[in-house]
Amino acid sequence: MSEPERVPRHTRVGIIGGGPAGLLLARLLYRSGVDCVVLEGRDRAYAEQRQRAGMLEHATVDVLRRCGAGARMEREGLVHDGIELRFDGRSQRLDFPALTGGRRVMIYAQTEIVKDLISLQLSELSDGAPLLFDAEVTGIDPGPANITGASTTSGSGTTTGSGHATVRYTHEGRERALSCDFVAGCDGSHGVSRSALPAEVTRTYERDYPYSWLGVLADAPPSSDELIYAHSPRGFALHSMRSPSVSRLYLQVPNGTDPGSWPDERIWDELDARFALTHDPGWRLRRGPITSKAVLPMRSSVVEPMRHGRLFLAGDAAHIVPPTGAKGLNLAVADVAVLADAFARFYSSGDTGGLDGYSATCLRRVWRAEHFSYFMTTTLHTSPAQSAFDTRLQLAQLDRIATSPTAAAELAENYAGLPLALGAPTSPPATAP
Amino acid sequence: MSEPERVPRHTRVGIIGGGPAGLLLARLLYRSGVDCVVLEGRDRAYAEQRQRAGMLEHATVDVLRRCGAGARMEREGLVHDGIELRFDGRSQRLDFPALTGGRRVMIYAQTEIVKDLISLQLSELSDGAPLLFDAEVTGIDPGPANITGASTTSGSGTTTGSGHATVRYTHEGRERALSCDFVAGCDGSHGVSRSALPAEVTRTYERDYPYSWLGVLADAPPSSDELIYAHSPRGFALHSMRSPSVSRLYLQVPNGTDPGSWPDERIWDELDARFALTHDPGWRLRRGPITSKAVLPMRSSVVEPMRHGRLFLAGDAAHIVPPTGAKGLNLAVADVAVLADAFARFYSSGDTGGLDGYSATCLRRVWRAEHFSYFMTTTLHTSPAQSAFDTRLQLAQLDRIATSPTAAAELAENYAGLPLALGAPTSPPATAP
Repeated sequence: MSEPERVPRHTRVGIIGGGPAGLLLARLLYRSGVDCVVLEGRDRAYAEQRQRAGMLEHATVDVLRRCGAGARMEREGLVHDGIELRFDGRSQRLDFPALTGGRRVMIYAQTEIVKDLISLQLSELSDGAPLLFDAEVTGIDPGPANITGASTTSGSGTTTGSGHATVRYTHEGRERALSCDFVAGCDGSHGVSRSALPAEVTRTYERDYPYSWLGVLADAPPSSDELIYAHSPRGFALHSMRSPSVSRLYLQVPNGTDPGSWPDERIWDELDARFALTHDPGWRLRRGPITSKAVLPMRSSVVEPMRHGRLFLAGDAAHIVPPTGAKGLNLAVADVAVLADAFARFYSSGDTGGLDGYSATCLRRVWRAEHFSYFMTTTLHTSPAQSAFDTRLQLAQLDRIATSPTAAAELAENYAGLPLALGAPTSPPATAP
Repeated sequence: MSEPERVPRHTRVGIIGGGPAGLLLARLLYRSGVDCVVLEGRDRAYAEQRQRAGMLEHATVDVLRRCGAGARMEREGLVHDGIELRFDGRSQRLDFPALTGGRRVMIYAQTEIVKDLISLQLSELSDGAPLLFDAEVTGIDPGPANITGASTTSGSGTTTGSGHATVRYTHEGRERALSCDFVAGCDGSHGVSRSALPAEVTRTYERDYPYSWLGVLADAPPSSDELIYAHSPRGFALHSMRSPSVSRLYLQVPNGTDPGSWPDERIWDELDARFALTHDPGWRLRRGPITSKAVLPMRSSVVEPMRHGRLFLAGDAAHIVPPTGAKGLNLAVADVAVLADAFARFYSSGDTGGLDGYSATCLRRVWRAEHFSYFMTTTLHTSPAQSAFDTRLQLAQLDRIATSPTAAAELAENYAGLPLALGAPTSPPATAP
């Protein structure tokens, strides 16, 4: 045949997208003996540079550890035992282990997870490369919805003649096709996977927030050991970090803000104003050279269901959350952990229960995270239309969190992370209104 | 003198309004030996008929018991150990004692409390009547802000010559004036007390909700032992009761609804549709003759501060909550309990600390209740502008409450009631934005 061995034509699971969702799914499938191919549209350098989240829930850390991708995270990640809330000039720390029965979170940037997973993927798989960069997907044929045609006994990755899905893509100047038992769409909210779901069987729920974040990276040691979430009449601010020498800082700004209208000095001054403490008026952020500035929109969207036939969406391809709750990456990890288990169960026993339950299982967690992200966002930001009454409600809610162990625990449980798969409700699950 | 003995000209505390706040304050002051006069603008029959709330928090029950006004409540009130939530065809009971460390609530109508307090007031005070009906207040002169001129040693109720407040009112066709050390404004949100606060030193925070309640009383036994709060795509509904033979039911309706557009049959059918259960499709309300129909607006307002000079606002005069959280009456009781203690402390020792702290102490609880009422209202009602995403968030929040002991406890603690006076914050309290 004319194609080189390293560009397979058949696989069990075709994974579209080489971000953390796609790479982690490949890793989990590899560990379960389910072969797969990852198609990433950009080059490796680009994939390893995309700045995204850095707060890993308890359960996310566990998944990375269990699949052997946690070694560098264990060395370099920063274990956090809580966060600080600032509002009305006050400061309140929330102690996560005390509030949640021992849960902690990890600060370790998504870019580092991607580097670790790419490195593992390329080093461990010498028999051809199931991770292709510069492989741009141009079309998905999800195949028949009936999945009994998938090959549950063959270890070769070759599907039976009928009942497969097809992913078309371009690579090294050629049009190619990958036939697969299943397709995992892990290519984000603007990727082809989401749009491959037929409109007549899916519904997208959306909400846009009337403000954005100006996010900066600075070569400055963090000004606190922990994240600081600040409510201020001037707008929201967040202090985070990427490493012991790099601070990650965010400011609420109006939608459509040009980062160029924010010189470094203005950013630092505004951050200091929003983090100001009444009892410690001299508190200031540690400053350093700002190496990156970008404006991030704040929006929510959820696609239901997360599966159509042999196409399964995971991560941002299925849902977007505003970054305030730090849930985007964690939801992606939860999705692919559930999906990998479902594939492993199917290929080991032919049981389709995990695949059939995938969407409903994930969506319960997704909506929980959407609500928590909405709660954090609307409690901490100042909306352009906000009344003085609304501001008082925000302060009353923050005062409650600061003084009630129950309210603090409700925030901490959601923040530090819920179990990977929430239990089924006792009554039938929610249906679309 | 020309005035009969029973219409006093001087007192320590002039109480405007003979609703539950004013009457309970009078009762508490009487028990502390602080003399007072209650001026109620309507007649006794009217005061005893006003339909209002009926859910008494744990702490409210304690106050009524402690001041000797709890005898009939103990016999006739219905002790409730929880509420039921219905949403998405599901049902979830919240067990208050289990979730709050033993707290229960009491169903006993406000009208009955008013009757009990009036009866006590008139029977125990034979030396003139410090409760005047048909006494319409026409003006309040709050006097000098400095309160050192108040008489702390005299038991006669006569103030020293200077430093008193004056309440002008009409009674039995005459213009009268009552001079007092202090005035307690307990005459509701449309009374003269709220408007007597100078605009330049007060601020009113307000929010209107885009829906109302159609509330009905029916001569039908309750359809459940407990209150049922129902979220439905058709709008909110609430099942409550006044007694073992009288049901109290509410339907969310558009603002401006004419109760006449809701014949009895339509009300029952709509209630059944909103309370419908997937697992028990035959569930129906017990029907009976509807004896009262009224449309209630949903709004919030808070006046800050709750005191100006010698004038202290309490209850609805200072704050209004939407009825969803059942907090209005309970806030009024908390206010007057704090205020009665402050007066007792002042008259026993001259200590003005309680009076000086009154507004800040009450406002923390008021804003907590405003937030909780907002939370219950917006979680359970369908707004005219609501998107499908918003409905999903409501269902996600309700699912969380139904499945997380922490989220359920947060609702139960707020519903069954917080302590009368919340602890002071560790940092300075909230200031107006």
